Amino acid sequence: MEEGLSRREIIKGVGLVGIGAAFAKIGGMVSKAEAKGGKHEKWPWPYEKLDPAKTAEIAYNEWYRVFCGAAVIGSIFMQLRDKFGEPYASFPIDSFIFLEGGNVGWGTICGSNAGASVVSNVIIGPRIANVTEGHEIADEILEWYSKTAMPVFVPKDPRSNKTGIIKTTSNSPLCHVSVGRWMKASGKSIGSDERKDRCARVAASVAYRTVELLNDWKDGKYHSSATWTPVKSVGITAQQNCGNCHGSSVPMPPMKK
Amino acid sequence: MEEGLSRREIIKGVGLVGIGAAFAKIGGMVSKAEAKGGKHEKWPWPYEKLDPAKTAEIAYNEWYRVFCGAAVIGSIFMQLRDKFGEPYASFPIDSFIFLEGGNVGWGTICGSNAGASVVSNVIIGPRIANVTEGHEIADEILEWYSKTAMPVFVPKDPRSNKTGIIKTTSNSPLCHVSVGRWMKASGKSIGSDERKDRCARVAASVAYRTVELLNDWKDGKYHSSATWTPVKSVGITAQQNCGNCHGSSVPMPPMKK
Repeated sequence: MEEGLSRREIIKGVGLVGIGAAFAKIGGMVSKAEAKGGKHEKWPWPYEKLDPAKTAEIAYNEWYRVFCGAAVIGSIFMQLRDKFGEPYASFPIDSFIFLEGGNVGWGTICGSNAGASVVSNVIIGPRIANVTEGHEIADEILEWYSKTAMPVFVPKDPRSNKTGIIKTTSNSPLCHVSVGRWMKASGKSIGSDERKDRCARVAASVAYRTVELLNDWKDGKYHSSATWTPVKSVGITAQQNCGNCHGSSVPMPPMKK
Repeated sequence: MEEGLSRREIIKGVGLVGIGAAFAKIGGMVSKAEAKGGKHEKWPWPYEKLDPAKTAEIAYNEWYRVFCGAAVIGSIFMQLRDKFGEPYASFPIDSFIFLEGGNVGWGTICGSNAGASVVSNVIIGPRIANVTEGHEIADEILEWYSKTAMPVFVPKDPRSNKTGIIKTTSNSPLCHVSVGRWMKASGKSIGSDERKDRCARVAASVAYRTVELLNDWKDGKYHSSATWTPVKSVGITAQQNCGNCHGSSVPMPPMKK
């Protein structure tokens, strides 16, 4: 135990502590400072409940223009821009095409997850503005994405995989792991039409789920179901699947004395 | 070779192809569509050359308010907001506090890297706007970060590690790997003052480098030095250090037939 966390502890997601609210997830790191005040740095931004299925259809089609991250952001912000104008009109959605392929192709965080984080934190606000739900929704999406057989959403008119699609569970929020597992199960290459349709459906699935959570928040009934508290549980910023990279000998980081 | 790429090939960063421009990095995925036109979706945004050292000092101090990603974004956008007002005045910098800890603590992409990607792509523009340097700078920062002994920048008045700081090379753009290697080398916990100062210096180092590259771009002399072409080289969105997680048996993804 002094050398590391056992595999069972990692899998159970325990360690030192259990479930906590957003602030607990980043124990000892909470900043108390106030926002410095750009023009639109007042939260929440205006929000009206959206149709998850309609949003997902937009995201699916936008993927073919701007890929995963900007598709998730745009599927929600373009509808809100049409309803409210500012502050959404000033947000440079298309710049976020860089989220593609896990940040300019490096396979880090899946752009759909990153896009959902942008959406919830831009609309609801950052945790230093004394709101926690933006952070919590971002966190919950990462956990939900990791444990869900993807893609969930089926578009009305899919561009490929028309007769059905293989689903895979990534157990990770990373692009590389998520798309890699799907490619292995399907036998399809990164450049195939089937893989593109798969990632467009993943973006649509994440947009759908993000709107569901935003609608709950708007109704005042959002409560995070996320359970992963990395800093408290394993003493370092981390995913929940340590053994996936570390194998059976997960190192133990230096802990507070 | 049919089963996978050899360790030597991975380390040498070759495989199927070599160096390429931004578009080559995402082979077969280029979208030709036009931007859909938010108010500030015209690029480039106004830019005047900034002082890298001054920017880094701002980022260092902002880290203690909004952590890594928003510190990098804010250190650059706040100066440009003071010079130009819009479109920077409308950008919700503080929302990007969520980039902390590799996206709400999950240890994925280091927030400093993600912040640099936001900056270069918001200022210069997305690749679908027929500009490549925003994408290229984001890409170059990921590679530079991975191979550089961090932190580089020494603030005028460090809050900890006052007599010197251990530097570590992450060989990865991920928060978990970057901070984990530093914690192992230093013996300091995630909650320690030394670790906080280290990550603030990393944010400052990335802000410094990002401004150097933006200044080169402004002078018309920016040329990407990035060499990693994941999709072309290994057939999947990926980091360059496959063996770090996969060990000696790196799987080969399905390739285009």
